[in-house]
Amino acid sequence: MDEKEKMIVLPAGDLNSKLTRLFDTMQERNVDTLVVSSLVNKLYLTGRVFIGYIVLTGADRSMHCYVRRPSTLGGPGVTFIHKVENIPGLMTEPVGRLALETDNSTYSHVVRLAKAFGKDEFANADDILSAVRAVKTPYEISQIEADSRKLSFIYSRIPLLYRPGMTDVELQVEIERVTRLEGGTGMFRVGGEDMEFNNGSVLVGGNADEPSPYDFAMGGRGIDPSLPVGANGTIIRPGNTVMVDTNGTFNAYMTDMTRTFILGESDEKTRRAHALSISILRRLEQEGRAGSHAADLYNTAVEMAKEAGFEDYFMGHRAKAGFVGHGVGIVINELPVIAPRSKAILEAGNVIALEPKLVLPGVGAVGVENTYVVTENGLRKLTDAPEELMTLVE
Amino acid sequence: MDEKEKMIVLPAGDLNSKLTRLFDTMQERNVDTLVVSSLVNKLYLTGRVFIGYIVLTGADRSMHCYVRRPSTLGGPGVTFIHKVENIPGLMTEPVGRLALETDNSTYSHVVRLAKAFGKDEFANADDILSAVRAVKTPYEISQIEADSRKLSFIYSRIPLLYRPGMTDVELQVEIERVTRLEGGTGMFRVGGEDMEFNNGSVLVGGNADEPSPYDFAMGGRGIDPSLPVGANGTIIRPGNTVMVDTNGTFNAYMTDMTRTFILGESDEKTRRAHALSISILRRLEQEGRAGSHAADLYNTAVEMAKEAGFEDYFMGHRAKAGFVGHGVGIVINELPVIAPRSKAILEAGNVIALEPKLVLPGVGAVGVENTYVVTENGLRKLTDAPEELMTLVE
Repeated sequence: MDEKEKMIVLPAGDLNSKLTRLFDTMQERNVDTLVVSSLVNKLYLTGRVFIGYIVLTGADRSMHCYVRRPSTLGGPGVTFIHKVENIPGLMTEPVGRLALETDNSTYSHVVRLAKAFGKDEFANADDILSAVRAVKTPYEISQIEADSRKLSFIYSRIPLLYRPGMTDVELQVEIERVTRLEGGTGMFRVGGEDMEFNNGSVLVGGNADEPSPYDFAMGGRGIDPSLPVGANGTIIRPGNTVMVDTNGTFNAYMTDMTRTFILGESDEKTRRAHALSISILRRLEQEGRAGSHAADLYNTAVEMAKEAGFEDYFMGHRAKAGFVGHGVGIVINELPVIAPRSKAILEAGNVIALEPKLVLPGVGAVGVENTYVVTENGLRKLTDAPEELMTLVE
Repeated sequence: MDEKEKMIVLPAGDLNSKLTRLFDTMQERNVDTLVVSSLVNKLYLTGRVFIGYIVLTGADRSMHCYVRRPSTLGGPGVTFIHKVENIPGLMTEPVGRLALETDNSTYSHVVRLAKAFGKDEFANADDILSAVRAVKTPYEISQIEADSRKLSFIYSRIPLLYRPGMTDVELQVEIERVTRLEGGTGMFRVGGEDMEFNNGSVLVGGNADEPSPYDFAMGGRGIDPSLPVGANGTIIRPGNTVMVDTNGTFNAYMTDMTRTFILGESDEKTRRAHALSISILRRLEQEGRAGSHAADLYNTAVEMAKEAGFEDYFMGHRAKAGFVGHGVGIVINELPVIAPRSKAILEAGNVIALEPKLVLPGVGAVGVENTYVVTENGLRKLTDAPEELMTLVE
């Protein structure tokens, strides 16, 4: 018989610290039993994905994994089931007040779960999970740091990957190749059902000003109407900027990072716009810390863009994004959101991407995006790579 | 002011034929208003993705697009909205009996929709949509044919991409690169919330026998527990098989295709197992046509594997897949499923992948997968490339 593989691949201290906060939040919100059904939240609590469920029981502050596949997993707190209806009979505590992942599971799935647990009413488990997930543990931060170091290395290779006459797609493909060869899984995880993306985008010249349907900072037309975002086959020409906003996903966590390149000479306006993005980052790095209001950071960024006379180009031109940053973690769009109507107050352990970008008609997109850890004293930058407008050599 | 771009990028005849069947099915199932909320079904009905909704109204057999983003879209039957709650006030017919995408939208989203439309009860729109989508229109088949031709070309390049000493990941990365350079979007769409995948898999030697959590025919350990499927960094060694099951997604549609390679000499058992896969395909191609029972095709395949003495290795060894084929279309796992308990009867216009595969411990996976169009007279193969066990040259 095969030996079972340990279900939990997280350090024990990491899981304990996540569970402490989850059980505390469950108690605050009067939830007795929380059922995790999404791949993303199973990954958060075990370090792996599997088919099945995790049940958190407030009464004894216990976590139990009910697994359908693969059968090779084992360890304490792991029970195999054929279907979710098996779970209530295996539980030792009453279900009490139930919470289900109503934002991350389909309607049919949630209805089936509620019936299996014998409940007509249930709370939203995603409110609890996403709030807890927004504050990263030291182990999670170490994973994001590891991912950031690899991604920063990839960015350092970009000028070497450029060849004269390349299109945006061709450059992106070479970036994807290096990323995968360096160990990227290529799995781009995005929260919500209204966004699709393939691992990053390279935006060249006027394509940066093409509105996309998705709520990303920059658009792009894409190569097919079935995926209308990002590179569209534009040849990189002298004077065009090349904005690279690509991801690696070298472990369970993501880093968000953007750098901008230019083929040949830049004009003064382009240089000023790019310098503005860097100035905004420097200012937000000074203002941002545990206790900062997300909306204040957004307003600071917009004010600076206005003062510099770049308001019309800030965070898009034909179409504008309504934020200047967002949390990053297992998915690319976690809490908090750095947006005008956000009520969020930054907490130590938040990991956020700040991306003050501009689109200049006829030139392309400029700007920098970094991923930061929020601390009591400020923002600690994880994406440590040159920020200036970098020249691609013809 | 910018000129608006036409929302519908499908031939008019294609949309009409889809709508005729949708409205007929709505009528049969007593549904008056069907709301499409998923990206995949918006793509099916317009040829593009956008943020918003499509409302099908049975009374006047009309389709209306309510768009949030991008603002550049226009054309007849397109109205811009800020939120879904705007829609009912814009409709000219009463809502009547409502159907919502309960299998493809989150619980929170469906509840919000039901409330917006003033209904406590609603039917499952996905039952209607997936049944209609299972029978492809001539235009859809032409798109899948175009995708298949490109993917068949990619497969013809595989022996040229191999370099001695390569790992499975390295070979996969080169296949991904060529696929993207030939125009693949890299967007791998899978139905359901319990499967994640990055564009295909290359399985070498013993890694083919590693169970994965997902309901795919073959497993593989992957390179990280966050994506435990597919290539895991195994070096391709003499006597190993290399099974390539990769996708392109060159347009809105997918093709499913597998070919098997071997480094150096194969032994007799490996050759027999691979030949069995091809024999099973030839038999299923004879038996399969409009009117065939999916379960019969599955049973024929399993019987042939038993007779040949390969039952223990058929459709997996340590972990087995419970099917031998499945529908393919906008997502990789459409109806019908070719499985023992399937009640499906093949219809002309179904597009199915048949994948009788085997895992031989110590050698790897063998077998072939083709995508077919079901016709009145048989199965028409779309993946036209050599099927024999192909040798990689050291």
